[in-house]
Amino acid sequence: MPTISQRGQIMPASPIRKLVPLAREAEQRGVKVIRLNIGQPDLPTPEEGLEALKHIDRKVLEYSPSEGLRSLREKLADYYHRFHIDVTADDIIVTTGGSEAVLFAFMACLDPGDEIIVPEPAYANYMAFAISAGAKIVTVPSSIEEGFALPPVADFEKLITPRTKGILICNPNNPTGYLYTQKEMNQIRDIVKKYDLFLFSDEVYREFTYTGAPYISAFHLPGIEDQVVLIDSVSKRYSECGIRIGALITKNAELKKNVMKFCQARLSPPLLGQIVAEASIDASTDYMLMTYNEYVERRKFLIDGLNRIPGCYSPIPMGAFYTVVSLPVDDSDRFCEWCLKEFQYEGATVFMAPASGFYTTPGMGRNEVRMAYVLNKEDLARALKVLAEALKAYPGRTLK
Amino acid sequence: MPTISQRGQIMPASPIRKLVPLAREAEQRGVKVIRLNIGQPDLPTPEEGLEALKHIDRKVLEYSPSEGLRSLREKLADYYHRFHIDVTADDIIVTTGGSEAVLFAFMACLDPGDEIIVPEPAYANYMAFAISAGAKIVTVPSSIEEGFALPPVADFEKLITPRTKGILICNPNNPTGYLYTQKEMNQIRDIVKKYDLFLFSDEVYREFTYTGAPYISAFHLPGIEDQVVLIDSVSKRYSECGIRIGALITKNAELKKNVMKFCQARLSPPLLGQIVAEASIDASTDYMLMTYNEYVERRKFLIDGLNRIPGCYSPIPMGAFYTVVSLPVDDSDRFCEWCLKEFQYEGATVFMAPASGFYTTPGMGRNEVRMAYVLNKEDLARALKVLAEALKAYPGRTLK
Repeated sequence: MPTISQRGQIMPASPIRKLVPLAREAEQRGVKVIRLNIGQPDLPTPEEGLEALKHIDRKVLEYSPSEGLRSLREKLADYYHRFHIDVTADDIIVTTGGSEAVLFAFMACLDPGDEIIVPEPAYANYMAFAISAGAKIVTVPSSIEEGFALPPVADFEKLITPRTKGILICNPNNPTGYLYTQKEMNQIRDIVKKYDLFLFSDEVYREFTYTGAPYISAFHLPGIEDQVVLIDSVSKRYSECGIRIGALITKNAELKKNVMKFCQARLSPPLLGQIVAEASIDASTDYMLMTYNEYVERRKFLIDGLNRIPGCYSPIPMGAFYTVVSLPVDDSDRFCEWCLKEFQYEGATVFMAPASGFYTTPGMGRNEVRMAYVLNKEDLARALKVLAEALKAYPGRTLK
Repeated sequence: MPTISQRGQIMPASPIRKLVPLAREAEQRGVKVIRLNIGQPDLPTPEEGLEALKHIDRKVLEYSPSEGLRSLREKLADYYHRFHIDVTADDIIVTTGGSEAVLFAFMACLDPGDEIIVPEPAYANYMAFAISAGAKIVTVPSSIEEGFALPPVADFEKLITPRTKGILICNPNNPTGYLYTQKEMNQIRDIVKKYDLFLFSDEVYREFTYTGAPYISAFHLPGIEDQVVLIDSVSKRYSECGIRIGALITKNAELKKNVMKFCQARLSPPLLGQIVAEASIDASTDYMLMTYNEYVERRKFLIDGLNRIPGCYSPIPMGAFYTVVSLPVDDSDRFCEWCLKEFQYEGATVFMAPASGFYTTPGMGRNEVRMAYVLNKEDLARALKVLAEALKAYPGRTLK
């Protein structure tokens, strides 16, 4: 039998994946599984998006342009202007989800052996896309004690080698909910400029910032405009993860040309998703406010509740809809598995994402989990209750 | 400024891409451009698919499973059974178009430096996906004189090195329309078995075979079941290229696991496209017969017409909806450009794909173009007339 690729084999299997069958088994035993493990909001897709689907009067669902429909790109440009991101439709390339934007950014910027520096904990799939591109992700640790603030500049500089080609940030952050400050963004800008790097900035959660602190886009930083590669997606802000529409935005003409080679190879992004995305940008202020207020409430409710459980600690996330929580347990992989396999309280259990999947430094995040507050308050209340009871019963509890 | 990746730069720009702006300019001058350059059928998407869109009653357009909706995979399995392809839903992974199936097949089977052998002329984007994966495509030439039949086994064997990991075929073939015979498929099987290779088989045109000769799937070949990676797409058979739904099919459990790593990284294939694809599989016999008969007629009409033009020669394509034609011209890149830039006949010109984009051996296909018969007969008639006149007027004409 021919051997399969190494690159697939070295791709770390997400610890969530191992738990998915256990969650299914728990459900088959009649246990309600409260899913805090994945960023799939329960909020409705905007009516505008759903209605657009019903009014498609095309006879042929044909290819769209490789860079995406012009009308969608123009609408996206207008949308970015609301955030003082000064881009035109020509700077925007529509991708199949934010995922493809990350993959194409890496493919078009990095050659095998090139390195990018990423603060950890970080979204696990960045690693998978880097491996696909043959590139190496080097992590600079942030810590729960510091509230997951940007690590000091010196920590980045220590990691820079002749192969370093870029820095990647996610802002607001998945998994931590951290929102980089103006000062931190300036520090990133200075490193990017000094070492002549790309700045990959995943800003898909920009709608969701809760503290009054400003959202600083990578495109707000003067002097590195041609080095910024912005990653975006409509998935989270319009609760339409399934339509697979994202964007890669660059003002660098040479890079754009390179990205387009990969776009042309895969012919076109999904037509139907583009139609829904374009209509969703017209979502009413009421809709946007409703989703925003919902997350504000859920955030407060979840974080307050978590910090009241003995031995639990969650910093207050400033954005996105995730938080990383430390728990009084020996090993969160084991704890999350135990919750699904062996525990229930009043007929329910919780499905959390072990934080080990978000770190590459061995041992980091060992007692941490990520929770997504994408469920309604009733479910969150029940999850908190179940978690508190689970922590009392868990054999590997570390709080005496 | 940081340098962009080499891999994008070495990706050959398709000669069609250079012509696209010229076609647009011609249209702006008021010239009708008859597009034979791309496999975008003008036939309608099945009513079943379009109706399904209008009846989506979901409130949230959420992620679908990374391997695709179970209901679609079961329906696809039933569909393959009609062609005596013995696969189950578990062997099928839904991808974002056939394009992603090719990319993931390469990513999961090949490591950087690995080689696959492909008969040329070949679909140009295979090359792009191989470059993305860091792999090398080695071509074995077929020729128009032999009607693009499979090159002799000895030609394949000459190219095999310790890095050879697979053979890729497209059957029925894009761009040639060739349909491999049972004898040829057996030869491929023997090489694949002897040298322990993967057989990547792109069979997206299986519905379109015209000569009564049987379509032989790679999965019909006994003894290499675990080495076959079948590439499929609903784009062409249901005229729904824009929905981006394809499939990668393998019975090799270890390989499937590797492919799934790449699928999980990109989260999910497009939900809406899956819904349309699933409904389209129920397209009526009338619909399938209508499209089939349409291509049969167009094929006869186009090929007869081409072979009547002095100096033109097209083999009779046995399947798909393309043909590669040799023309009495010095250089088909130049001729195709000239048609768009400098020529019109009764207000119209033709847009053809220079065959240079389908060959890697320098100089091959120099006087050949690919035409897609995806237009109605009236347009094809006009295209033939324009082409005949263009060949009379073209300064680089080689027929004296």
